[in-house]
Amino acid sequence: MIDIMSLSKITYGLYLISSFDGDKVNAMAANSVMQVSNNPLLLAAVVNKDCLTAEYILKSKVFNVMPLAENTDLAFIGNFGFRSGRGFDKFAKTPYEKGALGAPIIKQNTTAVYEAALRDTVDAGTHYLFIGELKAAKVLSGGQCLTYDYYTNVIKGKTPAGAPHS
Amino acid sequence: MIDIMSLSKITYGLYLISSFDGDKVNAMAANSVMQVSNNPLLLAAVVNKDCLTAEYILKSKVFNVMPLAENTDLAFIGNFGFRSGRGFDKFAKTPYEKGALGAPIIKQNTTAVYEAALRDTVDAGTHYLFIGELKAAKVLSGGQCLTYDYYTNVIKGKTPAGAPHS
Repeated sequence: MIDIMSLSKITYGLYLISSFDGDKVNAMAANSVMQVSNNPLLLAAVVNKDCLTAEYILKSKVFNVMPLAENTDLAFIGNFGFRSGRGFDKFAKTPYEKGALGAPIIKQNTTAVYEAALRDTVDAGTHYLFIGELKAAKVLSGGQCLTYDYYTNVIKGKTPAGAPHS
Repeated sequence: MIDIMSLSKITYGLYLISSFDGDKVNAMAANSVMQVSNNPLLLAAVVNKDCLTAEYILKSKVFNVMPLAENTDLAFIGNFGFRSGRGFDKFAKTPYEKGALGAPIIKQNTTAVYEAALRDTVDAGTHYLFIGELKAAKVLSGGQCLTYDYYTNVIKGKTPAGAPHS
């Protein structure tokens, strides 16, 4: 017997994951990110196969991850989390700069940036699990990070369709 | 430039991961667990290659994950987190039962149990990233779950050598 609700007891943060394809850039909100090795420094990030960001990561073999700050407002998260970058410019109101590997770095509402070169892609059902080797990492702000628990229970954010978690 | 300290901005919980080899059972404390797909239901768990639990998972192709409750005391976590099950019986003071797939379920200080059949093993440097398909899952208690932030900053737990995170 599988009680889907029991999976809500896994702890997550909330992140922006970005990538690019030539001159095109995209980013999305996601909660499933973790470090998986310290030598080499490897990060894992889970992205729905339908997402434009997944398509860009497969092409560019690069992704950036940025933890969101706890005081990020819902509109900012919604811009990256609830609509596709296909036919919509997520960066119309959000400045960014290109990182060392070419993927966008968003400094607004984020606490750090991890720049990763794709090393392994695991086909995980509805999602890809991307494993990237860390090439650059820095703190962007000292504030508290947004946890997924805080997002759902305090600022009452919703879970977009197609998230890996229930 | 890689600022290792920036990696502390990734949010984690704290879990027991268990497995078995015939009549032998083992479990360890770990923070790197996440759901990676909802169809099929897949979980990822990161285990240091040197751990006895990793050896058992590779043999039995089964692992259980149990989120720890926030009020778990340090001695209980230390029993599972700071020494190897090689030559030491981690279950001497902790009762358990065998789950549907054969791996131990520990109900003391845990909030849920996820029973997973190993589907994929990713070699991730110092660690294995195990991807398991959920075969059973249930809530064990309604309490708050222990976050890694709470563990390090409130109950002042330490990070064992060999953890994937910095």
